Amino acid sequence: MSFFSGMISTVFERRYRGAVDADARSTPELAHDLLGNHGEVSGGTLARLILDRYAKMDRARKLAFFEFMTNGLNISAEAVTQTLQAYQDAPSKESYRNFATACEPRRQELTRRLNQVSGATARLVAMRKDLLDFLPDHPELGPLDVDIRHLFASWFNRGFLVLRPINWTSPAEILEKIIAYEAVHAIDSWRDLRRRVQPADRRCFGFFHPAMPTEPLIFVEVALTKGVPTSVQALLADGRDAIEAEVADTAVFYSISNCQSGLAGISFGNSLIKQVAADLARDLPALKTFVTLSPIPGLNKWLKTAALPAAPAGQEAALAAHYLLEAKRADGMPLDPVARFHLGNGATVHAVHAGADTSENGMAQSGGAMVNYLYDLSQITHNHEKFVSDKTVIASATVRTLSGRITKRS
Amino acid sequence: MSFFSGMISTVFERRYRGAVDADARSTPELAHDLLGNHGEVSGGTLARLILDRYAKMDRARKLAFFEFMTNGLNISAEAVTQTLQAYQDAPSKESYRNFATACEPRRQELTRRLNQVSGATARLVAMRKDLLDFLPDHPELGPLDVDIRHLFASWFNRGFLVLRPINWTSPAEILEKIIAYEAVHAIDSWRDLRRRVQPADRRCFGFFHPAMPTEPLIFVEVALTKGVPTSVQALLADGRDAIEAEVADTAVFYSISNCQSGLAGISFGNSLIKQVAADLARDLPALKTFVTLSPIPGLNKWLKTAALPAAPAGQEAALAAHYLLEAKRADGMPLDPVARFHLGNGATVHAVHAGADTSENGMAQSGGAMVNYLYDLSQITHNHEKFVSDKTVIASATVRTLSGRITKRS
Amino acid sequence: MSFFSGMISTVFERRYRGAVDADARSTPELAHDLLGNHGEVSGGTLARLILDRYAKMDRARKLAFFEFMTNGLNISAEAVTQTLQAYQDAPSKESYRNFATACEPRRQELTRRLNQVSGATARLVAMRKDLLDFLPDHPELGPLDVDIRHLFASWFNRGFLVLRPINWTSPAEILEKIIAYEAVHAIDSWRDLRRRVQPADRRCFGFFHPAMPTEPLIFVEVALTKGVPTSVQALLADGRDAIEAEVADTAVFYSISNCQSGLAGISFGNSLIKQVAADLARDLPALKTFVTLSPIPGLNKWLKTAALPAAPAGQEAALAAHYLLEAKRADGMPLDPVARFHLGNGATVHAVHAGADTSENGMAQSGGAMVNYLYDLSQITHNHEKFVSDKTVIASATVRTLSGRITKRS
Amino acid sequence: MSFFSGMISTVFERRYRGAVDADARSTPELAHDLLGNHGEVSGGTLARLILDRYAKMDRARKLAFFEFMTNGLNISAEAVTQTLQAYQDAPSKESYRNFATACEPRRQELTRRLNQVSGATARLVAMRKDLLDFLPDHPELGPLDVDIRHLFASWFNRGFLVLRPINWTSPAEILEKIIAYEAVHAIDSWRDLRRRVQPADRRCFGFFHPAMPTEPLIFVEVALTKGVPTSVQALLADGRDAIEAEVADTAVFYSISNCQSGLAGISFGNSLIKQVAADLARDLPALKTFVTLSPIPGLNKWLKTAALPAAPAGQEAALAAHYLLEAKRADGMPLDPVARFHLGNGATVHAVHAGADTSENGMAQSGGAMVNYLYDLSQITHNHEKFVSDKTVIASATVRTLSGRITKRS
Repeated sequence: MSFFSGMISTVFERRYRGAVDADARSTPELAHDLLGNHGEVSGGTLARLILDRYAKMDRARKLAFFEFMTNGLNISAEAVTQTLQAYQDAPSKESYRNFATACEPRRQELTRRLNQVSGATARLVAMRKDLLDFLPDHPELGPLDVDIRHLFASWFNRGFLVLRPINWTSPAEILEKIIAYEAVHAIDSWRDLRRRVQPADRRCFGFFHPAMPTEPLIFVEVALTKGVPTSVQALLADGRDAIEAEVADTAVFYSISNCQSGLAGISFGNSLIKQVAADLARDLPALKTFVTLSPIPGLNKWLKTAALPAAPAGQEAALAAHYLLEAKRADGMPLDPVARFHLGNGATVHAVHAGADTSENGMAQSGGAMVNYLYDLSQITHNHEKFVSDKTVIASATVRTLSGRITKRS
Repeated sequence: MSFFSGMISTVFERRYRGAVDADARSTPELAHDLLGNHGEVSGGTLARLILDRYAKMDRARKLAFFEFMTNGLNISAEAVTQTLQAYQDAPSKESYRNFATACEPRRQELTRRLNQVSGATARLVAMRKDLLDFLPDHPELGPLDVDIRHLFASWFNRGFLVLRPINWTSPAEILEKIIAYEAVHAIDSWRDLRRRVQPADRRCFGFFHPAMPTEPLIFVEVALTKGVPTSVQALLADGRDAIEAEVADTAVFYSISNCQSGLAGISFGNSLIKQVAADLARDLPALKTFVTLSPIPGLNKWLKTAALPAAPAGQEAALAAHYLLEAKRADGMPLDPVARFHLGNGATVHAVHAGADTSENGMAQSGGAMVNYLYDLSQITHNHEKFVSDKTVIASATVRTLSGRITKRS
Repeated sequence: MSFFSGMISTVFERRYRGAVDADARSTPELAHDLLGNHGEVSGGTLARLILDRYAKMDRARKLAFFEFMTNGLNISAEAVTQTLQAYQDAPSKESYRNFATACEPRRQELTRRLNQVSGATARLVAMRKDLLDFLPDHPELGPLDVDIRHLFASWFNRGFLVLRPINWTSPAEILEKIIAYEAVHAIDSWRDLRRRVQPADRRCFGFFHPAMPTEPLIFVEVALTKGVPTSVQALLADGRDAIEAEVADTAVFYSISNCQSGLAGISFGNSLIKQVAADLARDLPALKTFVTLSPIPGLNKWLKTAALPAAPAGQEAALAAHYLLEAKRADGMPLDPVARFHLGNGATVHAVHAGADTSENGMAQSGGAMVNYLYDLSQITHNHEKFVSDKTVIASATVRTLSGRITKRS
Repeated sequence: MSFFSGMISTVFERRYRGAVDADARSTPELAHDLLGNHGEVSGGTLARLILDRYAKMDRARKLAFFEFMTNGLNISAEAVTQTLQAYQDAPSKESYRNFATACEPRRQELTRRLNQVSGATARLVAMRKDLLDFLPDHPELGPLDVDIRHLFASWFNRGFLVLRPINWTSPAEILEKIIAYEAVHAIDSWRDLRRRVQPADRRCFGFFHPAMPTEPLIFVEVALTKGVPTSVQALLADGRDAIEAEVADTAVFYSISNCQSGLAGISFGNSLIKQVAADLARDLPALKTFVTLSPIPGLNKWLKTAALPAAPAGQEAALAAHYLLEAKRADGMPLDPVARFHLGNGATVHAVHAGADTSENGMAQSGGAMVNYLYDLSQITHNHEKFVSDKTVIASATVRTLSGRITKRS
């Protein structure tokens, strides 16, 4: 197919090049062609030409292309002001359309038109990854990122995402991406991967976008257990005996990984956890408890700076609880980013465990401590309200008691 | 699935209703909830509640809802002016984002958030159909339509559409929509439908959006023939002998139908014809000619008003050619809407036939005359250029000669 | 695909024809080629040639072909006797294989080798249909039918059949066969079909063989109801309100149709009903009762011959009950063929209804009476045992009472 | 699904156990139940019980079970003789059926009835693997194997097999079997596997049976090249540059592996190679040459025993050619098993290469020599004829010349 569709597109491209010498035109000129009359008939050809050119650009040329999009396809303040005034003076469909058109920089339409060829969406997502890499040193590109992120938020709307199970019957081309993208507890090998997706008591689900069918956007790994687990090494132990899914009472979300840097800032995690919880609850009626087994990435860093009394041995869990409940940012939100995510989703701090992640990374970030956040479907709206309005961190009595053992010095 | 997912959503909804009494809240209040904090956690529930309420509204309530979206979720001119000034004074990601946010009325975000539940996209498309029905009498809703159309153009971007063959192995639920939506040559029955999609020399293709998998957006019916056909009744005759697809030299696009009134103004036809032509050319190398067999819907209406000499019998084709080449709108574009569509796609007027559609409708609109527009893939960019820039209607020598036989009475 | 694979096979065929002039060889000669050395390399070509020849044969030639298979490819009694003796004298793998080979006529191997090309299975099933048509007048072909039926029983083994739901998302090419094959309550139109497969409280399932994916072998239509229905017209009424499947307590098997005459004598019905009952019970836990709503095809015919007192009006149900419980064949089995089928499956006679099928056919065969056979999954093994060993017809007390009202005139 | 279907089957099993105490019955008794009345209604339950029992048997019990099948379910010579006589005396459908029934031992029907539950086919194939393991020490089980092989040959008829591409989009559960089953050039890792199936110039195809959808029966690995390759290490080199499939002129079958020991004696390789060659020829018109790159497994072993003059260095290819052309079994067929396979398929000896497989295994079996067998689709029928009738080994002039350099010491 790719061969023949390539042939066809070559025909079109030759025609286009016949009519207009594409090679002699700069990428901005091609972009203007795509935005103009040519775009209606030769849009696919032009979009492919521009994307292919982009793929071959070095960093300097990419920067130039982004600067063209930022400055060359920006709004005109004058046009905004004029059309706004005209709309104010005589509100109508026409005057409003003029205003709306003036407000939206042409770079948005360019991005939409680039998207018309097969495979373009993934290439545009990759393009934004490049853009994000430039941003720290080139803050002037910020407005371009605002527009692309806005467009992506519309394209990757929850209603367009597809939840798919990922397991040992999944295509290898998808599974190798799970290995590559796993961000929390690294997957060493295909054998390790199989332990995560094949046993009867393991599940993995990802969100996919129909235009990028082999690219997970985000995925979550789930263990089905009896009781709430207290150690990720035990959970993932090689050679453990799997249980039947039907007898499990607890679903443990032990790893959630975003896959696409180019979609940074567009949040899928909240929806994913709730959808997976709902689907599991439907299929496995014995499941009563939905928890995470989560890292506490900011604990050790905070401990170094916190004015705490020397903790006696055995106080690791208490310190972790204290950190989760008391350590705050300037805006009053929890210091720990994972805590902010789950509490923002309406979860609560359910239990804290010392020695729960004895990997090098686990020891380095939190001395091995981990936390269960509890998703009680009947409480998450209420919890979320409290968290958002009052910044209240809801925790179990056990965790509160643990935390209370730690007293600030002075 | 729908049962259980219903159960789950009911759980969520009860929770939402527990936290906030949904029944006591007006639809605008729910809309504001969806746009606010509640939306992050209870978004799905709120979206469903609003869409379900909408589905039960009478016309008056729908109008009120649209007026709320138009006026209650409009831009603030002051905010636009202020943020524009701030961006002008100090361009930055932050100041640009504030401007972009101020320019986009909240009704766009509301529409995106409504889209997060399964099946919402089709319901929103149906909602726009309602809106379009109101527009003639309620021009004040125009700005709302501008925004929704803008959003749909982004969502139904060519890159997200899927071309699918429609044939006798297609699901009945899709085939019955082909019967319902066929706009050019009505399909009487399943038997008639089978004649259009099952024989070896017939094809049908449609564009689908992944979020509306059982709803074609547009479809085209194709006959594979030897030579260019001159009669649609012959083409569709019951009992005719089908030929092998591999021996056909001509692909005839004899019917193209839009299916979704709610997507009015978003054009798919140009892409569809080119994609289908490219796919057929790839699969059937013997195909050399791609033409339409098209109605001339405006002919008879124009004849009534045109200052033409009495035409001797046998001049039907000449009159049709003359109409297609000479009858113009005030802006210089062809009067015939079908002609505008195909010529705008870069096709040419290839041949005109009298007695080509002897159906009641065909006789009424054009006295039975039809036209072949030719899609020469190597010329369409060039033709399109000429048509757009000079409004040149390119026609074959035969058609030009035919047209020349008719002289305007002076 | 068919075009190109046709091309390829033509290459092979030309080669075969190059090596051996196929056209000059009789069909029996080609059959011997297929059974011999040529078969190993040119088997596909030979099989296609023979099947294509068969397809074009008139009745006389088909008969000749069947006679060749019957007599020309029969066992040799001498070989059987000799190899049996040798096996008896010195039992070994080798001597047993010789015996087994001698016992199996070559026509079985021919049939297997004919099956090696795509689509052959359906053509062989159609071939047996022809054979069955000949049998009454040509009993000498009986042994051929014994062998083919034996082979089909092995090929269409339950383990190879696939149960598939048939509904409004099924391909039209399958649905049109449901219309064609429905044997119990005729389907008039696609609209009528939709009433059988689309509503939430209707189901249809069929067994398919992987080598005949568009051909149902047998299908059953199911209505989900509250309570046991007493009228098929009420069940199928146009315009009735469907109920939610989840609230139904009863699954009614109201029609079961065999589709392939060429598979006569190979029974699928027992397996189909049990598999469908098991699947429905799993998916819809509220279902408690599994019954049929069955015709009583032999009732009126029997009434004409039975020595019964003149029945007062209102005795229709009693007569039907009496017939089902008391009317027997010479071998002691129930006279009614539908009764034999369901009782043989382990079902019981649950209820009898007058006026339950007021169609022309229903009135003609049973004066409108119908019967519910009950499939109690916990009792069917037991019931079957009793039926097979003692020919006991198990019926509900109500039906037994009804039946008792009728007394034979002595 | 497995959970619920398990539940249902448990219901059935309890009923069966209620009616007949299954646990108290020996496996032969259950087998007789399955063959008798119970089989009609409780067949699925009985089949599952027996297969589950078998799965738990130790070797001694398996042997006993096979002996029961061999002796307990054998033919009766007396019945064969009597029914044969009756059929001879009065040929009829009835008398022939009696004979056919007498000839077929009940173990065949038992095997068919065991096959009626989901997954049974794979378990029966595994059962035959066990049987084959017993055969050398228990030749008395030979007749049982004759019957099961006969049944499998019917079930795994070419017409029921499905050719499927195996590539990087295939399920991991299938790909891991490719790693496990590759018999010619071992696959070390998933990375190695990806090199075999993902690049644009690699293909892999397997035959599957619909009842064992995740178990390849046989697969072939293909490289698309320019020119005929002379080294398997070069072909499989890590880091090589793939070519576009469309520019390849040669398809190289460099590995073909049978996967199911339990299907020993049922040949799929001939069909597979021809089907794959036909499919590739259709999809890639530039392919002109179809060859293997094959091992010469018997070369070194033969060299040790052959009366050959000491070969000067550089004569490896000549020796290999001589071996392939001249080394024969007592029956006149080539000594080399791989040669017998490809020559029997109608291929020819095209070229011989020294140093073509420098792996440990390659050096050990043939001193690194390999051979290309050529599949010329226009000649294979002819070649096959010659090979079968005259045992002629057709070889290219080059190979014949090479071979001629070696003279037997007299």
